[in-house]
Amino acid sequence: MAASPYQQLEEEFRRLHAFRGALALLRWDSAVMMPRGSAEVRGEQLAALETECHAILVAPKVSRLIERAQANSQSLEDWQLANLREMRRQRDHALATPNSLVSRLAKATARAELHWVEARRTNRFVDFAPHLEEVVLLTRDRAALLGQNLGLAPYDALVDEYSPGVTSADIDTLFKSLARRLPSLVKEATALQAAKPSLPIIGKFAPAKQRALCVEVMKAIGFPFDRGRIDESEHPFTEGVPGDIRIATRFEPNDPFQGLLSALHETGHAMYDLGLPKEWRDQPVGRNRGMALEESQSLFIEMLVVRSRPFLSYLKPLLEKHYGVSGPEWEVENLYRHLTRVHRGLLLIDADELTYPAHIVLRYDLEKRLLSGELQVANLPEAWNDLALPRLSMKPATDVEGCLQDVHWAIGQFGYFPAYALGSLIAIQLWEKLRAAHDGLDAEIARGDFGGLFTWLREHVHSAGAKLTVQDLVKEATDRPLSAAPALRYLEAKYLEPR
Amino acid sequence: MAASPYQQLEEEFRRLHAFRGALALLRWDSAVMMPRGSAEVRGEQLAALETECHAILVAPKVSRLIERAQANSQSLEDWQLANLREMRRQRDHALATPNSLVSRLAKATARAELHWVEARRTNRFVDFAPHLEEVVLLTRDRAALLGQNLGLAPYDALVDEYSPGVTSADIDTLFKSLARRLPSLVKEATALQAAKPSLPIIGKFAPAKQRALCVEVMKAIGFPFDRGRIDESEHPFTEGVPGDIRIATRFEPNDPFQGLLSALHETGHAMYDLGLPKEWRDQPVGRNRGMALEESQSLFIEMLVVRSRPFLSYLKPLLEKHYGVSGPEWEVENLYRHLTRVHRGLLLIDADELTYPAHIVLRYDLEKRLLSGELQVANLPEAWNDLALPRLSMKPATDVEGCLQDVHWAIGQFGYFPAYALGSLIAIQLWEKLRAAHDGLDAEIARGDFGGLFTWLREHVHSAGAKLTVQDLVKEATDRPLSAAPALRYLEAKYLEPR
Repeated sequence: MAASPYQQLEEEFRRLHAFRGALALLRWDSAVMMPRGSAEVRGEQLAALETECHAILVAPKVSRLIERAQANSQSLEDWQLANLREMRRQRDHALATPNSLVSRLAKATARAELHWVEARRTNRFVDFAPHLEEVVLLTRDRAALLGQNLGLAPYDALVDEYSPGVTSADIDTLFKSLARRLPSLVKEATALQAAKPSLPIIGKFAPAKQRALCVEVMKAIGFPFDRGRIDESEHPFTEGVPGDIRIATRFEPNDPFQGLLSALHETGHAMYDLGLPKEWRDQPVGRNRGMALEESQSLFIEMLVVRSRPFLSYLKPLLEKHYGVSGPEWEVENLYRHLTRVHRGLLLIDADELTYPAHIVLRYDLEKRLLSGELQVANLPEAWNDLALPRLSMKPATDVEGCLQDVHWAIGQFGYFPAYALGSLIAIQLWEKLRAAHDGLDAEIARGDFGGLFTWLREHVHSAGAKLTVQDLVKEATDRPLSAAPALRYLEAKYLEPR
Repeated sequence: MAASPYQQLEEEFRRLHAFRGALALLRWDSAVMMPRGSAEVRGEQLAALETECHAILVAPKVSRLIERAQANSQSLEDWQLANLREMRRQRDHALATPNSLVSRLAKATARAELHWVEARRTNRFVDFAPHLEEVVLLTRDRAALLGQNLGLAPYDALVDEYSPGVTSADIDTLFKSLARRLPSLVKEATALQAAKPSLPIIGKFAPAKQRALCVEVMKAIGFPFDRGRIDESEHPFTEGVPGDIRIATRFEPNDPFQGLLSALHETGHAMYDLGLPKEWRDQPVGRNRGMALEESQSLFIEMLVVRSRPFLSYLKPLLEKHYGVSGPEWEVENLYRHLTRVHRGLLLIDADELTYPAHIVLRYDLEKRLLSGELQVANLPEAWNDLALPRLSMKPATDVEGCLQDVHWAIGQFGYFPAYALGSLIAIQLWEKLRAAHDGLDAEIARGDFGGLFTWLREHVHSAGAKLTVQDLVKEATDRPLSAAPALRYLEAKYLEPR
């Protein structure tokens, strides 16, 4: 019997998945292993593969199959229907971007990423600027075309890629709820903490030791080292596909926690990928539900699990083992104060839960202006520094602490940043529900047992893949629509508790 | 003006080149970086990419363009004509292998390679056998189809892939010339060397120090570390494309030379790739002229340059620097005796110039029998050991020293081994000519100056790419057809010199 249109579509998307897996490896390699002089050649390879992925999606054959599968959709099951919807969604996004643009963007971002790495090293934004400029111009074209085809404003069309179904109006509403309370909360928390400062934690922590600690904690969490790796790169990231997940972190010899926190953030991504429905792993419906959900899973670990007394009880003996440290500053209560300290910092990667949204809003504002043309790339450092003062209460001394700190724009990820803040809100709403539904969670975490936690996340989040919309997924898992209320409840309880 | 058929072909092959570059990276990663549990997923990615490469070559569009370009070939220049001929050659090979077989072979070899690595660790051939069996069965199908389409015997069709235009009849003739003299030469050389044995070189040589030594020598030779890497893997290899060359070696703590010699062998490959005509780098005519030529360039460095008194004069102070060694056993003359010692060994990778051909002929015989079905995979260890005794004068104690030592068959490279012996003959014929044409070569090498050597190789070998046939290239470079005579002259002079 000949394959049905739906079955033929599954075959096309299986091929697409394999190409995307190859692309993921090429990107991982570019960031972690590739010799610097090979960027041009790598750019050609990325461009060829991305063009091919795009060609699969925009092929008349695929559109024809989608129409025919849709016409026979009564024979499809739930998951197949959702898969067909996601196929169509990917096709629609692809159709809105012409082939030549895809290939030019791939080359431009490969170049820009390389120069970003170099510019961070030398603190010379001017060397990076022309390459970012090229990425911005191409992204602007892309946003305009995408918006036209999806019936969205240009910037909203970009947001839709990372946070499906979410618009900048939704984001504005959520950000406004946060803005009403967060600035005063930051002040109150800062005052409370100033009255009871934590003991400073200083020392030298060899990267090899940090790595060993990371690996032990990641193993306890369940990171699959037989199907994944941890490496080091300029900017922490997760790449790959379920079955070959690669995370990267950065170890700072002066900081015992930064590398670990980044690694555990990325481990959250990896665990999400690992929990996706296996039988759909090479189909659109079996992938993650966009970046906002991805970030909810990484922030869940980094912010909610790790920065808690139970986790730090588990971590304390491991710090003693790997770093050979002891003393009052390494007691659980001091570690907790240290890691929940609200501090006005310049780096997103070091941001705490309370100041985190301000970092995001700054980028959200700037990327909208960059794309609208209101802000020129050449003026980005100045604009960044001007916003940093009111938003973060500090001004970067160098661009490395300012507009050179993130890789996102270099690699064309405009519209991505809001997903971090959405992810944070989703994480806290899930956390509140999990704690209500699952007794004994703290005791489990304190003994390094993360099984109950991930059983719940798998059941309510991971195993859904891309079957539900973001909003439906959150509502099904927590019985309430997504809002900023749980986050504000959680943050008030955590940061205004009498110490 | 619309692109001409020939120009459209160049565009198709440019895309093919980018996909092959991605494939090279995926293979490199599989051998050097990939977590062991990811082989299945990687196999799918390799299969998808190889299928796509195959699809490009067998597309009716490409055949149509080839016919049309051929019809207008009077407008093409020399290089373009040669490029068109190579395009046709690749198309002919691809047309002879159906798509489904390509994809099954890619998956089977990915699995077999992984189990080969494991079987080497555990010395359990039985665990590897079913996976090799699968590769053999698929390769047998492929050889039969290839042979039918190219009008060649099945095994000759496989040889043609690695040594274009060479048949097993040619190989038999060359091997016979060697066989007439080599066994007695081995005996005479062994007797001479036994009378004046070299001082033993023993000690522990940390891999990190071996690596540092390698890197320094590779830099002197001209390996482009800004567009290449050296890593470690089970089996030394070179992967990648000009612009991103990756070599791998294996460091044995008990042996100060094995890792270095492997690395320099691979550096020979890398230097060939680096010297290929840049303007044709993404076209068939701009690639290497097959594996026999590749091996000639790696053996040129490993056997002819490195195992010479001038090179060892250059190496001596570097050994002192990196290994901290001195004493009579580290004097140039002793190093030379050590590295030109004729020894009956079991490993191809350790073989010397004189016994090398015997290792190749053993494999040549066995792979022909495996493919004809005369030899079953289950009986390979026994057959190997039976041949090892007469050919190598030794019997392997374990399969790790026997039929588990090479990766080639696991990854489907049947018909490859003869290219090593052909490469050796070509290398020596080039060496003889270079020495006659270039005064002062020894003095240059002794001071670590490899410029003159590579200038000659670039001009006479590398820069030709795949423009000439193997035979024509050798004849143009040396003014004589390829024969075993220069090799026999060289080996007699080197190994029967009065010491």
